[in-house]
Amino acid sequence: MLTVAEARNLILQQSRSFGTETILLSEAYDRVLAEDIYADRDYPPFNRSAMDGYALQLKDIEKYTEFKLVAEMLAGESIKILTEEGTCIKIMTGAPVPEGANLVIRVEDSELNNDIVKFKSLSSKIWQNIALQGEDAKIGELVLKRSTIINASTSGLLASLGRNNVTVCSLPKVSIVSTGNEIKAVGDSVLPHQIRDSNSYTIASFFQHYNIDIASRKLVSDRKEEIKHAIESSKDMDILILSGGVSMGDADFVPEVLNECGVKTIFHKVQIKPGKPLWFGIRDNQTVVFALPGNPVSCQVAFKVFIEPFLRACFGLPLCQTIKLAMTSDRRKKSSFEEYFPCILAPFGLTTGLQQIKNNGSGDFTSITRSSGLAVHPAEIEQLKEGDVVEFIPWKGV
Amino acid sequence: MLTVAEARNLILQQSRSFGTETILLSEAYDRVLAEDIYADRDYPPFNRSAMDGYALQLKDIEKYTEFKLVAEMLAGESIKILTEEGTCIKIMTGAPVPEGANLVIRVEDSELNNDIVKFKSLSSKIWQNIALQGEDAKIGELVLKRSTIINASTSGLLASLGRNNVTVCSLPKVSIVSTGNEIKAVGDSVLPHQIRDSNSYTIASFFQHYNIDIASRKLVSDRKEEIKHAIESSKDMDILILSGGVSMGDADFVPEVLNECGVKTIFHKVQIKPGKPLWFGIRDNQTVVFALPGNPVSCQVAFKVFIEPFLRACFGLPLCQTIKLAMTSDRRKKSSFEEYFPCILAPFGLTTGLQQIKNNGSGDFTSITRSSGLAVHPAEIEQLKEGDVVEFIPWKGV
Repeated sequence: MLTVAEARNLILQQSRSFGTETILLSEAYDRVLAEDIYADRDYPPFNRSAMDGYALQLKDIEKYTEFKLVAEMLAGESIKILTEEGTCIKIMTGAPVPEGANLVIRVEDSELNNDIVKFKSLSSKIWQNIALQGEDAKIGELVLKRSTIINASTSGLLASLGRNNVTVCSLPKVSIVSTGNEIKAVGDSVLPHQIRDSNSYTIASFFQHYNIDIASRKLVSDRKEEIKHAIESSKDMDILILSGGVSMGDADFVPEVLNECGVKTIFHKVQIKPGKPLWFGIRDNQTVVFALPGNPVSCQVAFKVFIEPFLRACFGLPLCQTIKLAMTSDRRKKSSFEEYFPCILAPFGLTTGLQQIKNNGSGDFTSITRSSGLAVHPAEIEQLKEGDVVEFIPWKGV
Repeated sequence: MLTVAEARNLILQQSRSFGTETILLSEAYDRVLAEDIYADRDYPPFNRSAMDGYALQLKDIEKYTEFKLVAEMLAGESIKILTEEGTCIKIMTGAPVPEGANLVIRVEDSELNNDIVKFKSLSSKIWQNIALQGEDAKIGELVLKRSTIINASTSGLLASLGRNNVTVCSLPKVSIVSTGNEIKAVGDSVLPHQIRDSNSYTIASFFQHYNIDIASRKLVSDRKEEIKHAIESSKDMDILILSGGVSMGDADFVPEVLNECGVKTIFHKVQIKPGKPLWFGIRDNQTVVFALPGNPVSCQVAFKVFIEPFLRACFGLPLCQTIKLAMTSDRRKKSSFEEYFPCILAPFGLTTGLQQIKNNGSGDFTSITRSSGLAVHPAEIEQLKEGDVVEFIPWKGV
């Protein structure tokens, strides 16, 4: 049986671009840049005053004790010129420093009387309180690499650069099929032996992290024909996710039906807990298929450990960043597999540690709602001790 | 001048609900629950088999070495009854355990020949491999509290409970006004002394974290009449955010105009770097107004430190969770204020530490795009040493 790392590698090998498209910046939030972004001009575009104060010449400071105020420079005005010795120009934060001036003295460190400015004796140095033209980025410089997620700060930068339109990675077409005779739709009434479909909601929510709407959601019984029909009708999808029917039970037909529909098995089963029965395959080098165990916790683990890394690789993004934190208590592993367990962040000495959430196993979807993410109990370590450092995968990502 | 904590407390005192509304679960992602959610029945709703195997009676195990297979129990079938001694029922993962049975032995630990099942000698105990009815939640039990963000796992739980519709906190109406003679719209061409509006994109992106679309975005000059008009036309907003014009410069009319428009000053200026000139007020106990410094980094800091906590309080959510991590290098503070600096996560010994991103000050919006969040340099500590633990606020939250 494959290890988690081996399985993930096989999955990542199937990653491919879904193409690119150009959209409005205002609609690009959470999308992934598909172009390198270069500075259209220097940033700052001019020597910018970082303070409200007076712009003058450093060399004048030793010569003069009083300066004649000759002009005012507001933000948004054309750049003025400072020519005469012993003069200064009042300047506002964000305004361009006048040509000829090479420092700004703060208004707090000055005294103005009838157009005459005196400065408190201070150590002054060249370019003081000035953000120099091009110090953040030079014209033509690469400022954002492709495969960057467009978030608050990157959208601000793109706006500054005048990028009303940006080229982003196109989104995959995703279909979710929940299988199981016992599964009813959320709005339906249930008999005592029936349960409601929850995995399609969980999976759909996760895809929303990347702004992906699910193209199609289906609910089918364990009957082969029904499963077959659902798979066949997902032919033009980029990603097909099934839940349920992948174990070795007598009604677990999903892998078999997938093969009958021409989906090639890449692997079945992984040394992971929860989530061992995971099945992964591909059809016509186009649709990748994840068939997940039916239980809700396994589904969530499978998304973070396998599906999200696939998606990110398709967008050219690295694996999700993890945070290495100390355990706040011991944990014994029951299986020989790599285990993923829901955690919250909790104080641990001066730092933040990981506190395992009590739960009743992979079917328990109430306790997991209180968690902030998953922690990883490595396969080869039987017992984690309080203070041992493990990887933490926040549900949201960092 | 107020400390950060004092300013935030004054802001939180103005928090209020924006009402509630009932929406489809499938559209509730990232929204905040406004009702307590109780289990509509026991979870699991029946004694559920956690394995593919055989259901039988514990007391029979000592008596019999062979069991007669009398039935099969698939998921989604009505619950069967195990009556006769020395018999067993084949059962699939997720199926209800037959009445009368009290343990499940895994199919891997058994041998089936002509309807006779033999089990390998194993330690067996009552309820083995069975998730007991109600062990995750009892009917009527509170399973999700109001003021919980609807994410992947909570939407799965809500679906399980049959909640096709959920009552969530209504969203505030938010208006953003960027001020400044030097500011041009993103699509416009710029002269050398002009820059483009970026803050409205940054702020709008942040609000998207909570699924909030900005109701109105305006760009105005530093002329009082224009600012006034923009403020007046935001009368029916819950939150008005201005950027620029709040310092002490000669064109900084925003606080004055806000007062003229009947917005009461709650505070102006905070001991924070970057972002000192922050102005906060309220009009008619209805519209809260944040007037932010114009520079992009201050804007981002102000959102995470002041605006987001306000928003969360309005939704009944606690402050964003922070993570306490060690610094990977020293940092000297230049001001006497609480400083917020952009960081990335980086290896630090066995754990994850905080690495400061080099930047050119509060106007530098290129370097901040490479950061994962903000770290806090406390006001009273001049120098942070490598290994010192500080608070980290991820841009995305945890």
